Amino acid sequence: MNRQDLFSLIKKKKSFLSVGLDTDIRRIPAHLQKLEDPIFEFNKQIIDATYAYAVAYKPNVAFYEAHGVKGWESLQKTIEYIPEDCFTIADAKRADIGNTSNMYARCFFEEMPFDSVTVSPYMGEDSVKPFLQHEGKWAIVLAATSNPGHFDFQDLITQGQGEKLYEVVLKKSAQWGTPDNMMFVVGATRVESLVTVRTIVPDHFLLIPGVGAQGGDLEQVCKYGMNKQCGLLVNSSRGIIYASPEKDFADVAGKEAQSIQLQMEAQLSKFF
Amino acid sequence: MNRQDLFSLIKKKKSFLSVGLDTDIRRIPAHLQKLEDPIFEFNKQIIDATYAYAVAYKPNVAFYEAHGVKGWESLQKTIEYIPEDCFTIADAKRADIGNTSNMYARCFFEEMPFDSVTVSPYMGEDSVKPFLQHEGKWAIVLAATSNPGHFDFQDLITQGQGEKLYEVVLKKSAQWGTPDNMMFVVGATRVESLVTVRTIVPDHFLLIPGVGAQGGDLEQVCKYGMNKQCGLLVNSSRGIIYASPEKDFADVAGKEAQSIQLQMEAQLSKFF
Repeated sequence: MNRQDLFSLIKKKKSFLSVGLDTDIRRIPAHLQKLEDPIFEFNKQIIDATYAYAVAYKPNVAFYEAHGVKGWESLQKTIEYIPEDCFTIADAKRADIGNTSNMYARCFFEEMPFDSVTVSPYMGEDSVKPFLQHEGKWAIVLAATSNPGHFDFQDLITQGQGEKLYEVVLKKSAQWGTPDNMMFVVGATRVESLVTVRTIVPDHFLLIPGVGAQGGDLEQVCKYGMNKQCGLLVNSSRGIIYASPEKDFADVAGKEAQSIQLQMEAQLSKFF
Repeated sequence: MNRQDLFSLIKKKKSFLSVGLDTDIRRIPAHLQKLEDPIFEFNKQIIDATYAYAVAYKPNVAFYEAHGVKGWESLQKTIEYIPEDCFTIADAKRADIGNTSNMYARCFFEEMPFDSVTVSPYMGEDSVKPFLQHEGKWAIVLAATSNPGHFDFQDLITQGQGEKLYEVVLKKSAQWGTPDNMMFVVGATRVESLVTVRTIVPDHFLLIPGVGAQGGDLEQVCKYGMNKQCGLLVNSSRGIIYASPEKDFADVAGKEAQSIQLQMEAQLSKFF
């Protein structure tokens, strides 16, 4: 999916919600546990219930991989089930030397039809570029994450301009791609970083996890992060998919997604 | 496998060779291509032929993942086939927020019986710690890699002590674990870094890729990297497994591994 199509989708659905499919077998309602593939069945019902309110789905690959071959089967079925008019994100945090990143790109862009994959920048240019060489596909590079560990390295001040590491990551990696094939991960709890991020990459889309369970504030995120093509995909995982642990989990997830969509609609109406 | 057992294995086999199983379907000899699982069949013969000379096997997970579910089946069969007295490395470069890293650790330490997994440090402490909480298992943290992109971020000078980012990564992450559950990746082409690395982490094992195809020099690596428990696992992938593209690939791989083992034996004899 290209940038213009993504923006059109956002305007059509009045939403920039990404639903995170961090599907943990231990949190799936009891009545699904006896089915052959509880993870896929759970995802299917979550997707059906939230489709009207979401523009993107983000399976967290670790939750599938934890079950080995069987988990990869659930992931494959899930990506095939997600409607084609949604943007899909393999949240995989991959990257390695060039020939190996090529293999990861083959996995998520050819073997599976994901639109994008999250990428870790530590190994530099040749580890990121293979994800940028697939027409209509995206690398979403980790910049400023919202977990406690972000202080350890991302916020280190570097010599020279006195920039933080994540600022250098944004500046350098923005040169390897364009706003049409690269996005960045910026945590929702780091509103102060958003101002800095937008001075460095005004046009890129940002993937913002951490609204909801991790405590981010949607209004603040929009105030400092939105650009002229929206430029935001805000993800909620646990807050939606585990909103109810009972048989009504999909209905309640749908209502939760709708509630976020309405807040997003209000924010979008200020700009578009 | 614990550190003492690894050192005993090194002394017994007079080798600290890790064989990298970067098994690319396009480079597997023609006569294997018609079999049901050419990747596993190739690995099986490589393992049989190199077992006498290697202490570790390192499947590069991307090469399996590129084939989706089928690739994960090949990986599962491979890890189950590697003899139990070898050290096994899932070269996966994983890491994410804590609950997600937990899932990756479950994958490689519980679902599959790997001894260790390579871990990317960018997201900091809570992304690495879940890999340290499994008895007898190891996190191998990326420090100074040998690919061209290492200059982009790993070598940035940070404010304060004027250390490079990879030095800060070594210092901080060494505090999260011990030499009994953490190793570091240091590229073989970066001999000048090895001196620095050993002043920061004298006791840890280092995983050194890049000897052979990537141009590293074994003698230099040993001179600057070896410690009193050897402290080195030197990996060779392409130089061994693709030494011959013909039917004799396994025999030639075995001879290549033996040749490296003999060089390692000569180096070890200087110290032990």
